[in-house]
Parts: sequence; C-alpha cells; structure tokens
Amino acid sequence: MRVLVIHGPNLNLLGERQPEIYGSQTLADINAQVEACARTLEISVTFAQHNAEGSIVSEIHAARHTQDAIVINPGAYSHYSYAIADAISSVKIPVVEVHLSNIAGREPHRRTSVTAAACVGSVSGFGCRSYVLALYALAKTQGK
Amino acid sequence: MRVLVIHGPNLNLLGERQPEIYGSQTLADINAQVEACARTLEISVTFAQHNAEGSIVSEIHAARHTQDAIVINPGAYSHYSYAIADAISSVKIPVVEVHLSNIAGREPHRRTSVTAAACVGSVSGFGCRSYVLALYALAKTQGK
Amino acid sequence: MRVLVIHGPNLNLLGERQPEIYGSQTLADINAQVEACARTLEISVTFAQHNAEGSIVSEIHAARHTQDAIVINPGAYSHYSYAIADAISSVKIPVVEVHLSNIAGREPHRRTSVTAAACVGSVSGFGCRSYVLALYALAKTQGK
Amino acid sequence: MRVLVIHGPNLNLLGERQPEIYGSQTLADINAQVEACARTLEISVTFAQHNAEGSIVSEIHAARHTQDAIVINPGAYSHYSYAIADAISSVKIPVVEVHLSNIAGREPHRRTSVTAAACVGSVSGFGCRSYVLALYALAKTQGK
Amino acid sequence: MRVLVIHGPNLNLLGERQPEIYGSQTLADINAQVEACARTLEISVTFAQHNAEGSIVSEIHAARHTQDAIVINPGAYSHYSYAIADAISSVKIPVVEVHLSNIAGREPHRRTSVTAAACVGSVSGFGCRSYVLALYALAKTQGK
Amino acid sequence: MRVLVIHGPNLNLLGERQPEIYGSQTLADINAQVEACARTLEISVTFAQHNAEGSIVSEIHAARHTQDAIVINPGAYSHYSYAIADAISSVKIPVVEVHLSNIAGREPHRRTSVTAAACVGSVSGFGCRSYVLALYALAKTQGK
Amino acid sequence: MRVLVIHGPNLNLLGERQPEIYGSQTLADINAQVEACARTLEISVTFAQHNAEGSIVSEIHAARHTQDAIVINPGAYSHYSYAIADAISSVKIPVVEVHLSNIAGREPHRRTSVTAAACVGSVSGFGCRSYVLALYALAKTQGK
Amino acid sequence: MRVLVIHGPNLNLLGERQPEIYGSQTLADINAQVEACARTLEISVTFAQHNAEGSIVSEIHAARHTQDAIVINPGAYSHYSYAIADAISSVKIPVVEVHLSNIAGREPHRRTSVTAAACVGSVSGFGCRSYVLALYALAKTQGK
Amino acid sequence: MRVLVIHGPNLNLLGERQPEIYGSQTLADINAQVEACARTLEISVTFAQHNAEGSIVSEIHAARHTQDAIVINPGAYSHYSYAIADAISSVKIPVVEVHLSNIAGREPHRRTSVTAAACVGSVSGFGCRSYVLALYALAKTQGK
Amino acid sequence: MRVLVIHGPNLNLLGERQPEIYGSQTLADINAQVEACARTLEISVTFAQHNAEGSIVSEIHAARHTQDAIVINPGAYSHYSYAIADAISSVKIPVVEVHLSNIAGREPHRRTSVTAAACVGSVSGFGCRSYVLALYALAKTQGK
Amino acid sequence: MRVLVIHGPNLNLLGERQPEIYGSQTLADINAQVEACARTLEISVTFAQHNAEGSIVSEIHAARHTQDAIVINPGAYSHYSYAIADAISSVKIPVVEVHLSNIAGREPHRRTSVTAAACVGSVSGFGCRSYVLALYALAKTQGK
Amino acid sequence: MRVLVIHGPNLNLLGERQPEIYGSQTLADINAQVEACARTLEISVTFAQHNAEGSIVSEIHAARHTQDAIVINPGAYSHYSYAIADAISSVKIPVVEVHLSNIAGREPHRRTSVTAAACVGSVSGFGCRSYVLALYALAKTQGK
Repeated sequence: MRVLVIHGPNLNLLGERQPEIYGSQTLADINAQVEACARTLEISVTFAQHNAEGSIVSEIHAARHTQDAIVINPGAYSHYSYAIADAISSVKIPVVEVHLSNIAGREPHRRTSVTAAACVGSVSGFGCRSYVLALYALAKTQGK
Repeated sequence: MRVLVIHGPNLNLLGERQPEIYGSQTLADINAQVEACARTLEISVTFAQHNAEGSIVSEIHAARHTQDAIVINPGAYSHYSYAIADAISSVKIPVVEVHLSNIAGREPHRRTSVTAAACVGSVSGFGCRSYVLALYALAKTQGK
Repeated sequence: MRVLVIHGPNLNLLGERQPEIYGSQTLADINAQVEACARTLEISVTFAQHNAEGSIVSEIHAARHTQDAIVINPGAYSHYSYAIADAISSVKIPVVEVHLSNIAGREPHRRTSVTAAACVGSVSGFGCRSYVLALYALAKTQGK
Repeated sequence: MRVLVIHGPNLNLLGERQPEIYGSQTLADINAQVEACARTLEISVTFAQHNAEGSIVSEIHAARHTQDAIVINPGAYSHYSYAIADAISSVKIPVVEVHLSNIAGREPHRRTSVTAAACVGSVSGFGCRSYVLALYALAKTQGK
Repeated sequence: MRVLVIHGPNLNLLGERQPEIYGSQTLADINAQVEACARTLEISVTFAQHNAEGSIVSEIHAARHTQDAIVINPGAYSHYSYAIADAISSVKIPVVEVHLSNIAGREPHRRTSVTAAACVGSVSGFGCRSYVLALYALAKTQGK
Repeated sequence: MRVLVIHGPNLNLLGERQPEIYGSQTLADINAQVEACARTLEISVTFAQHNAEGSIVSEIHAARHTQDAIVINPGAYSHYSYAIADAISSVKIPVVEVHLSNIAGREPHRRTSVTAAACVGSVSGFGCRSYVLALYALAKTQGK
Repeated sequence: MRVLVIHGPNLNLLGERQPEIYGSQTLADINAQVEACARTLEISVTFAQHNAEGSIVSEIHAARHTQDAIVINPGAYSHYSYAIADAISSVKIPVVEVHLSNIAGREPHRRTSVTAAACVGSVSGFGCRSYVLALYALAKTQGK
Repeated sequence: MRVLVIHGPNLNLLGERQPEIYGSQTLADINAQVEACARTLEISVTFAQHNAEGSIVSEIHAARHTQDAIVINPGAYSHYSYAIADAISSVKIPVVEVHLSNIAGREPHRRTSVTAAACVGSVSGFGCRSYVLALYALAKTQGK
Repeated sequence: MRVLVIHGPNLNLLGERQPEIYGSQTLADINAQVEACARTLEISVTFAQHNAEGSIVSEIHAARHTQDAIVINPGAYSHYSYAIADAISSVKIPVVEVHLSNIAGREPHRRTSVTAAACVGSVSGFGCRSYVLALYALAKTQGK
Repeated sequence: MRVLVIHGPNLNLLGERQPEIYGSQTLADINAQVEACARTLEISVTFAQHNAEGSIVSEIHAARHTQDAIVINPGAYSHYSYAIADAISSVKIPVVEVHLSNIAGREPHRRTSVTAAACVGSVSGFGCRSYVLALYALAKTQGK
Repeated sequence: MRVLVIHGPNLNLLGERQPEIYGSQTLADINAQVEACARTLEISVTFAQHNAEGSIVSEIHAARHTQDAIVINPGAYSHYSYAIADAISSVKIPVVEVHLSNIAGREPHRRTSVTAAACVGSVSGFGCRSYVLALYALAKTQGK
Repeated sequence: MRVLVIHGPNLNLLGERQPEIYGSQTLADINAQVEACARTLEISVTFAQHNAEGSIVSEIHAARHTQDAIVINPGAYSHYSYAIADAISSVKIPVVEVHLSNIAGREPHRRTSVTAAACVGSVSGFGCRSYVLALYALAKTQGK
C-alpha cells in the first residue's frame, strides 16, 4: 500500500512555531516517526509539504494514479479552502484529515473543517500520533 | 491500562439503525472487536451505553478513580451537551471522542462538537475502527 | 393496531401548568379521551410520560418491536433534542409529533421542531384533540 | 358547518408535480376525498385554488361572512407571506394550516411557517389526509 | 396637485381587523378624512386598494403619467416586497410611505421597511392622520 | 399646547455638515421655521440641542412636568441608545421621532431605530419639514 | 422549438426605469431583438410580462404543454419568490433565468436568486443580450 | 419557610473540578454553610443534586407541594434546557437561579441563561455565597 | 467598609416609571432601605445617580481611592456600554452589578450584560432587595 | 478579437471528477469545442488552467495588454477569493464568469460568487456551452 | 500646524489600568512624549481627555475652526459610537484614529471600529508611539 | 536593522489599478519613497511582491533568519487568509500590517483583518506613507 502524506502551510516550521500548541518536534522528526510506523504496517509512505493552496490541489491530483491513499493536514486551509475540498472530492482514493492539535477546542474559526467534509474521516489532537493513527485507519480501509 | 468505552444515545440500536450510515455491525460486534484490539495493547476495557445525558455525566465521574482513560461516542449529545463537556473537563483522566461516521461531512448541526472541545482529541469516520484508533492513541498518551 | 403515546417533560403537570396556554384538563383526562377515540378506531393504545430525554429515547427504542406506531409530544425537547430525533430515525414504525398549543405562533425558540423533522408528520394547536387527530392519521397510514 | 378549503400556488399541478414528494393524486382527487369525509362530518365544503398571494388574501376576507372556518395550504407562501398571515389574523373564523409533505423535514426555508403563526393549528405530512384531519379538528373546535 | 393614495393588503378590512392595533375607522372613513384635508391643501386625491403585490406594482406604474405624487401604505408588503420597492424606484414622481401603527415598536419582522428605502420619506404611528401628514409633506415638496 | 423639540448629536452643525444629505439650512433656520409653524398651530415650542446621550435622557425627564409633548431627532443615538428609549418609555407625554433624511434608505446601521420603538410615531425624510409634520401630528393627538 | 419568454415585475417600464442600470431600450425593443435572433435559431418565441407573482406562476404552468422551454427574468421576485421557484420545479420543460444587470455585483439582497436554483442555468449582466444567450443555450439543450 | 436547593450536573465534583474557577470547597462544605445560614433565617432547607435534566424537572415538580421556594444552580443546563425552564414556569412557588462563577464574564455559550428567564431572579459570581444570598432574597419575597 | 452605590440612567424616575416592571418605590425610598441595611452590616454607603455614560465612567474612577467596593445598576447601559465595562476593569475594588427586574426574562436586548462581564458578580430580579443582597455579598468578599 | 479562457482549480480533472455533476467531457474536449465556436465568431482564443489562486491573479494581470477579454471559471475560488475579484477589478478588459453547473442550485456555500461581482456578467449551468455563450456575449460587448 | 489630541474614556487611568495591556506610562507621560515629537515636526499640539461620548462629539466640533487636524483614541467608543463617527464626518479637518493596543487581535467586540470608518486612516498597536505616528502621518497629509 | 516589505496580490498593478482608491503611484514609486525614508532611519529594506498566498507564507518564513522585522500589505488576503496569519504567528520577528486605503471605511468584507490579529500593529489609510509610518514604528520597537 502506498500512502502520500501532505503537510499544509506553516508545518515546515514545526518545532519552532508556537511549541506550546504544536510541540517541539520538527517536521523531519514527525516524518521519521510516521515512516517507522508505516514500515510495520507494510505501507510505503511519501511526504510533501506545501504552503500554497494550489500546490496542495495539484499534489492531490497527482497522487490519484500513483498512490493508494492520502493523509493530509491542511493546516489553516482546513477552515476555508473549498478548492482543496473539491480536489479531495475529485479523486477516488481515500483521504484522511489529521491535525496535531485538537481543533474542536481552539479559536472559533478553527472549529469546523470544510476539507474534512470531503474526506473519509479525520483524527485530531494527538500530535504527531494523529498521522500514525491515520495510517492505521487506512491500513484496514478499502476503497472510498 | 484501564479504559472505559462509553456509547451514547441510540448506539444500542446499531446494526438496525440507518445501516447505510452506521453500518450493519451491532454494538456487541463492535465491543468484541474493540476488546480484541484492547487485549493486544494490554488495555483492560469496560463498556457502557446510555441514552440519558445525565447517566453519561455520572459514568464519566465514576470513571475518574477506577479508569485511566475514557473513549466516548456521545452521539447526538456531541452537538449540544455542555453538561457532558463540563463532565469531561471535570475529570483528570484523558478522554477521546469517537464517531462512526464522518460528522464533518453530514448535516450542518452535526459539523461541530461541543464535547470534543473538552477532550484531548477525536477520531471520526472509520466505523467501529474509530474506537480502535482511540485505544491506539491512548496507549501512547500519558496524563491529560 | 397498537399505538404508544409518549408524553414528554412537564406534561404530567397538565391542568395545573399555565392553563391559559395548555388548558385545564389533566393528563389523565387527556389519556381517557384518547383511549375512547382509540377504541372507536380499533387501536390499542398505551401511555408513557417521561421528563427525561434519555428515557424518551429508550421508550421509543422499546416500542419498535411491540407497537405499530408512536404518537409523541416531546414538549420542550422538540426544539433541541437531536438525541430524540435520532431515536425516531432509528425505528421503522411511523412516529407522529403532536403539540397541544400552536407552536408556530409562540416564542421564537418554539417555532421549529428538530424532532418533527424525523417524524412522518405533525399536528399542533388543537389541545388534547391533537393526539386524537394523530390517531386518525395513523389509522390510515401504513409503514413508514 | 361551512368550511372553505384554499389551495395555494402550484397545488393545481398535483399529481404531475414532483410526485415523489407530493404523491400522484390530482387536486380533483383530493377534493373528492375531502368532500366525502366532509359529508360524514356534516360539513359543507367549498374549494378554491389560487397561485396569487393577493387572491388568497381576498379569498380569506370573502370567507369571513359566508364560512364558519377555513382550511388552507398556503404552499410556498407559508414561508414568507406576512400578507396572508395578516389576512388570517384579520378574520374571526378559525383557520387551520395543512401541508401534504412534512415541512419540518424538508429544506431549511420550509421549516418555519409565518402563516401558521396566525392560525389556530396546523397539520403536516399526511398527504391528502392532512386536509381531512383539519376537518376533524374543526368539527369539534368552536370559535377562534 | 394630483395625489394617488394606495392602500395595501388587508386595509380593506379596517375597522373590523384587530381594532386594538388599527383603530375602529373603516377605510371609507379614512378616505373621507384624507379627502377633506386634501381639499384644504388644493390636492386632488384618488384612492386605490389592492391585496395583490402585482396590482400595487401596476398601480404605481400607471400613476406616473396621471399623478404628481403617491402616498402608499404597503401593509405587510413593506417588509419583503422588493418588487414594489423597484416599482417605486422606477417612477419619477415622489412617493411617501405611511403606516397606521408605529411599526418600529411592533414585532421584529415589521421593524424594517424595504419599500420605504425607495421612497422620499415615511410617516408611521398616527393612525389615519399618517396619510394626512403625508399630504402636508407632499404639498411642499417639489419633484423627487 | 407646549412642545419641546430636542435635537440630538451633530445637529448643531447643520448647514455645514454633509449638506448633500442634510441640506444647507442651519439649526437656527430650522428652529425659526418650526416656530413659525408652531405659532399657526397655537403650540408654544421650546428648543434644546445636546450631543450627550445622558443630557438627552435628562432633558426628556425634565420635560415631563413642563411640556405636553416632545419632538425628538435623536440623530445617531436612534440606532443604539436603549437609555434614551427607556427615557421615552419613562414619561407619560407623547414623543414623536423625526429625521431629516430618509433613514430607511441609508446605510444598514441606520435602517432600524430603537428609540422610535418607544415613541408614538415617527416622520423621516422631509428635511426640516419632518419637524413641522410632527407638530401637526401632535396638534391632534391627545395623551399617549 | 417553441420558447416562452417571461418578463417579471417592472420590466414593462424598461427604457424609462433607471436607465443607468437597465439601459435605454424599451421592452418592445428587446422583444424585437430577441425575436430576430430566435428566427435565426428556428425558435418560435412568445412573450409575456407580468407584475404579479401569481400570474408568473400560472404562466409557467400554462407553458408546460404548449412550449418546449422558458426563458424567465423574474426581476425582484428572483430573490424571494419560493412560489415561482416551486412552479419552475413543477414543470418538466427546461427554464433558464436571465438578468439584464449583473446581479452578483449589486445590493446584497440581489446577490442570491432562489428562483435560479430551480432552473437549468442562468445568464446575467449582458443587457438584452442575456435573453439572446439564453436562446442559444436552449437551442442545444434537450429535455430537463 | 421550607426551601429546596437543587444542584445541577457536575456540581457533585466541586472541590475537585477546575478549582481555579469553582473554588476548593466540596458540595458538602457548601451545603453545610447554606444550612448554617438557613437556620439563622428560620428556613428549613433540603438538598438535592442531579446530573440528569429529567431528574431536575421531576425534582422541581415534586417540590411544588412540599416546599415554599427553590434555589437552583442548573449548571450547564442553564444555557439550553428549555425543559427545565418549562418546569420552573409550571410551578407556582418562587425559584431563584444561582451560579458559583460570574457567568456573564465566561465563554460566550455561558452568557445567557434560558432557565433564569423563568425564575424570579438570579445571583451569580459569589461562590457558595450565591446560594446564601438567594436564601436572603427568598426570606423576604412572598409568592411568585 | 465604604461602598458606593451607582444608579444608572432613568433610575431617578423610579416609582413613576413603568411601575408594573420597576415597582412603586422612589429612588429615595430605595436608598433609605439600602442605607438601613448597610448600617446593620457596618457599611458606610454613598449614593450617586447619573443619566450619562461618561459620568458613570468618571464616578467609577473617582471611587477607586475613596471606596472599598461599588454596587452598580447600569440600567440600559448594561447592554452596550463597553466604556463602562472598561471602567470597571480599570479599577481594583470589587464591583457588583444589580438589576431591579429579572433581565434574563425580558426583551432580547436586555438578556446579556456587557458590563456584568467585568464585575465580580451580579444580582437581578429582587427589586430594591437586589441592592441589599449586593451589600451582603460584598460584606464577606475581600479584594477583587 | 483575442479572448483568454482561464479554467480554475480542479477543472483539469474534468471527465474524471464527479461526472454526475460536471459531465464526462475532458478539459481538452471543452477547449476544442470552445475553439471551434471561437473560430466562427472570429475570436482568437487562448487557454490556461491553474489550481493556484495567485497564478490566476497573475494570469489576469498578464492578459490586460495581450487580450481583449477574459472568460473565467474560477471554480471553488468563486466563493471566497477576494484576491481574484480584486484582480478582475484591476484590469480594464471585460471579464465574464462561467460555471459548468448551475451554482445557484447547489450547496449553500456555492450560491454566491464574490468574483462574479467584479465581472461584467456571468453564465452558469450549461456545461461546456457556458463557455461558448460567454464568447457570444463578448463578441458583441465593447469595452468594460 | 495645530493638532488636537483627544483621549477617550478610561485613558485618564493609564499606567494604573490593566498595565499588561496598556503599559505603565501615565497619560501625562504619553502627552509629554507626543509633545516632544510634535515640536520636532513643528506641530502645535493640544490635549483633551473625555470619558463622555457627548463631550468628545463637542470637542471634535469645536476643533474645526481652531485646529488643522485631530488625532483621536476613542477607546471603547470606537466599537459602537455612531455619534462620534458622525461628528468626525461633520468636520472638514482630517482625523486620524489611534489605539495603544492592537485591537485586531483582541476580543471580538474590539475588532471593528465604526469611528475609524469616518477617519482618513488609523494606527493601532504601538503603545504611545501610535500617537506619534499619527502626527507623522498628518505632517505630510493636506486637507481631507 | 533589516526590514522586509511584502506587497500582496494586485499591488504590482498600482498606479494603473483603480487610481481613485489606490492613487497613481506605481509600486516602484512607492518602493523608492520607502527606501529613501528607510535610509534616513538606517534601516536596510528589501522588497517582495507576491500574488500567491503560499508564496507570502514562504516569504515570511524565509525572513525569520535574515530580517529583523517585516512590513506587510496582504491586500485582499487580509480578510480571509488564516494561512498567512499563522505564518506571522510562526515567526518571532515583529510584523506590521499596512494598507494604502482606510479599510475600516470600505466594503463590509474589508473591515476586519484576520492577518492584523497576528501582527504587532497596523497602519491604514495614508497611501504610500502607511509603509513609511510602519518603518518609523519598527525603528523604535524591540523584539515582539
């Protein structure tokens, strides 16, 4: 099984960015942990990080022939990017949304996710383990 | 590790209730699968199901001295029960919210969860595997 | 035909409670009238009254194997109990919502009913005759 | 007892119009059934159908001296015609609102009725039997 | 100076309709008083009453070549008829809106007037004198 | 008959302030015209102008024993001063609200008046003649 | 192909009404241009203009057996007439909404169209050419 | 004078629950202090605590024949339980709402109380002294 | 202990102003009762009444060095005066808000208090006893 | 005449993406049809497709010196991209918005277009013919 | 150049009032710094501080003949005083709004300024330097 | 001190784009003026302009090690880009938001800035001098 992990805007600054909310691990640390877990699940995982909404749309498109599933953390775009939501609806492979923090308990504008509406499911609040849990979820889910 | 799994209102009818949304497994089926997974994680799991908001509040209270964590699917109460949200805030053990369906993609009134705001995190959309993923999440999370 | 009549919160105080809105008949008076009418329609009618949301949910569940239809006056729960609405959606027998007063013409919070949305239909504003009319409606309606 | 039945806009197309929502009976079929029932209740019933808001206002006015009650299905006007609501408030005979479909469970704009607020009560969701139930309701209600 | 007075829906029932709000004068009484006042102001006044929104639109159009000004009480249409508002904007003669009752102090839906937005001014709350005051206003206003 | 005319905030700058909206007459010009008209109606008129909300409240209070009625243009306070609205409700003499411009057709925040809700009626859009029309209205209105 | 063109309220005043928004052509001018274009498309076109909401509803109904399609400019009714929207949904021939001005760029209340929601498509902003474009659209569209 | 004190959901965890907001006293501590004060006021006080909405409704009902007044802290139910509000309206003895914290200064969802609307008055923000103040208030208030 | 009691706008008219809501006591009567109670609590009490928002702000400021606490009834300003709310936040002595009527049960605009959000607590609905209860509350509260 | 056709996000997946909404033609198919039509209108047409909001802004800018008009389908950006709306306002050549589906009849978030507000007009709901109709519209429109 | 600096409500308590938000400088400290800067810009600066909305309105009026510009910090009035906004619109000299704190990042009610809408520009978030920057801005701006 | 100036979408068209709002200076003109001013303040200034949201995010990130502060005009993104707001929160150097026009006085969607909420302060309405004032502000502000 091949899974693409897409990190959205500002996640490249993890470790440095508001560590009281997002923790002190860097994106490389997270990717390493996700990769280790993926290996035990016999998942081949690829990583991408984009600050641009359009690049995330294109990355999702590109994955539809080369990947079996997508794990995405759309960051702030979760709350207003109908373009990314449409991209998720446009591909047939399953997409799972993840968040490091528990978005339901943060500022009002972060409490709903328009992109999660187009996904098969979502995992929020477990730091880097949110990604790992998404892999577990996908390991047993077939099709969309 | 001891984990209490609380199923909210109408979940006792699983299998029979709108199977196109909630699947055809019964609550007993789900509990069996969760228990099987819990054993592999060396988690001792207990189950409760309540249709009443107040009973869920009391169940959460009771768990604070006898359990190490709670996995809760508050069902429809997720969207308006500030009493359950306060109960979750009142106990020191970690609480994870789960949903069988992907609530972000359903009717408007199901898109925000006031109870999730008081939890450490949430998992939605993976059917009975949402519970299993919550156990995985708790297996590695310490304290609240 | 067997029909369960569920009276929601505060209806046990009928006759005594704000008689200028709800009339001076007691719940027993109403039940007697409903029963008299039911007999002429060859309907066997059972009554329940609950102040608790969860008990109403459970009562609806229990009725699904023993009754052919439900007439429910959810009282104040009509306006916010998605748990009761989900319970109604969970059972296959037809459910009709009734109100003593004409809720469309009262305070703003009473003008929409989230539980009626899950019923087959509703009758409001005819005092105790609202229940009787619901029986007439059910007497000729088959299935859901 | 003399009762005027007013059918609002688009109801003249019944049978042909979205039969999955409104059923396959024509307006003539419905009127025949209502008339049959009226006869058993010793009610003399008259029918009117208008697509125009103003004609419904005038029809209500005209009925105040020649009828003992009105049964009205204001169709789409239910949701915004304060002119019809004012007409109902302007006459002293009782007016009952009916709907073929269960408006509480349809699109958001159909969930509240501004005209029902001026009526004595309403019946929704029982197809052509909604009209019949309104006659039963009126048969026992005196004055406004 | 020629002025057309347009009475909107339900005003034909004045005297009979909710006299505690609208007073006990009939429309004929009001017209007589308005006419008496008009004579002292050397205004030639014509009256029209319509329950239909479209007829009011057409009446406004027709007046543009035969009248010097319009006094209109759009009744309930004041609060939602953008068609009448557009008709008022479409003619070059001045239009003044009047209301018998003080709409600012009634139910929320009566507190704003979309038709008044297209008029030169409005007078509310003085019973039949609202019309007379509008004539005084027009007697000294030239053009639009 | 004794009438107090209260001009609200910024009206002291009339003539100079946005003449395209408020006209080129000064407050003194307006007062002179109002006084001339008052004389023909045998009304003894007094004028006050206040920029302060509290002074308007006090002015209204003071008038209750020395005046028979009040004409008030609360300016911008019309749209948010519940304190002035309460002052108007606190006195038994009739109060009429006036506006130079047609507030129904201006910016959204000017389209509702919370102070008019406490008055007997209002006149808007006739420039300085709005005050004169209010005097006419009061000349024939008795009590509140 | 037979197409009915329905012009809504106030469109009879075209040329005269706010020409800075709606242009200086009269309705006759527009009809002539539309007819010329229709001839080249081998469309037989009929015209109707109504100021009344109910007449537009009836006109749509009447067209369902005699026409192959409808082009409608509902004017101000576009923004609130659920009755016209229901009429459009009630007929099986395709209906296209047109507007002379670009309603998306005008006052807030004109930015959504409830009637367009029931049409197959819409064209706005091209003056009288909006109608012509609708004919082109219909010339190639089959059924609804 | 006999007064029933009803503590709502989660108040049984006082002392342990978010002490930075609710203080470190237990419910027993509070009851002791309230009882001490009650004795000085010659009030006989009874205590109840319920996590369930329906139990609070029933408790209020039961009190109507055995108590002279009620002091209630509905906790989170204050903000959405129209069922409890209706229960308070259904009994003739006076009911006073109390809150330990100053709800006006907390999260938005806690700033309005639908249950307080049905009470004679409310006291918020004085910790356990809020209950004592309610007793003082009742000691001098007669009837409802 | 020294306490300043501030009465807001229109309270100087107590006794005369809407006695069905505010009672028939004058402000002097209330002050006398408050003073009598203060004496028993060994509180030295001073009174101020202002109709002007700015004067209330200044009065609060002035009290910070000469008083130990403030009891304030901001009247209508409670619902919109962020300036008074800021003044309360600016001083270190405790401030308690009081209302004669039960504002939670009145018109929608009176149901939230922006000034109470800055106070330590509030008491509403007990007529002049609301002030007395605030003194009791302060007598036992230390600091802010 | 030179016209640039800009396809927004996800339109590159046409044919594959939700064909029940967007049809089975690919973007190349659409471009071919548009080009064929353009040739008959003597329009020289160029195509661009971008998933990125910023690229669409830049493409619009670049066109202002090389093209005579733009036809744009901003896809999901239509509903929130004020940046694209500003770009359209920044150029002097006319811009026409097109949509394949009838956005007025889809999910609430698709019912208003902030980008259409800056265009000269829009065409929605005719599949690939929406683009062709835009060309017809532009063929006869001069300047902006 | 003569500039009037107006400090709004509660600013007289600077240094003492919530220093974590507003800093520890007193108003005198700020005025001294502003004056020092003004001297280098050859601006003659005058200071005023008012807690009353009406006094600020009057101060703005008075400045129109004696000053060349105004720098104003309306404090809490920024968020609701349309009276001050109208005063700013009434004078022809330029007015600049300043805030010590960054109001865009504070509580929701502080995020929009109705008074800034009437100014030429605004500066927020730089503590006492916000005033100095406003002087720099004015030093180079001519007229309004 | 090194400061990066970021110009957002459409600012590259300055001089050409709606000069009645944004003035006739080009971006190069503005940069030249800002640079001249920077030199006098001993600030080394670098410029960037991006139409893409993601590029602005990346530019902010890149600046965190090479610059001491950022001045940003996010253009239309100010009103909805939580991604840019998060980027600003992610870096430790101070960021100041500027706008050429006075956004508080323009269309409703421009009146709040979500990006300004993450900045230290903002300056709006002074044309190209807004940038210069931001430099002055930064010259004296240390750290974030």
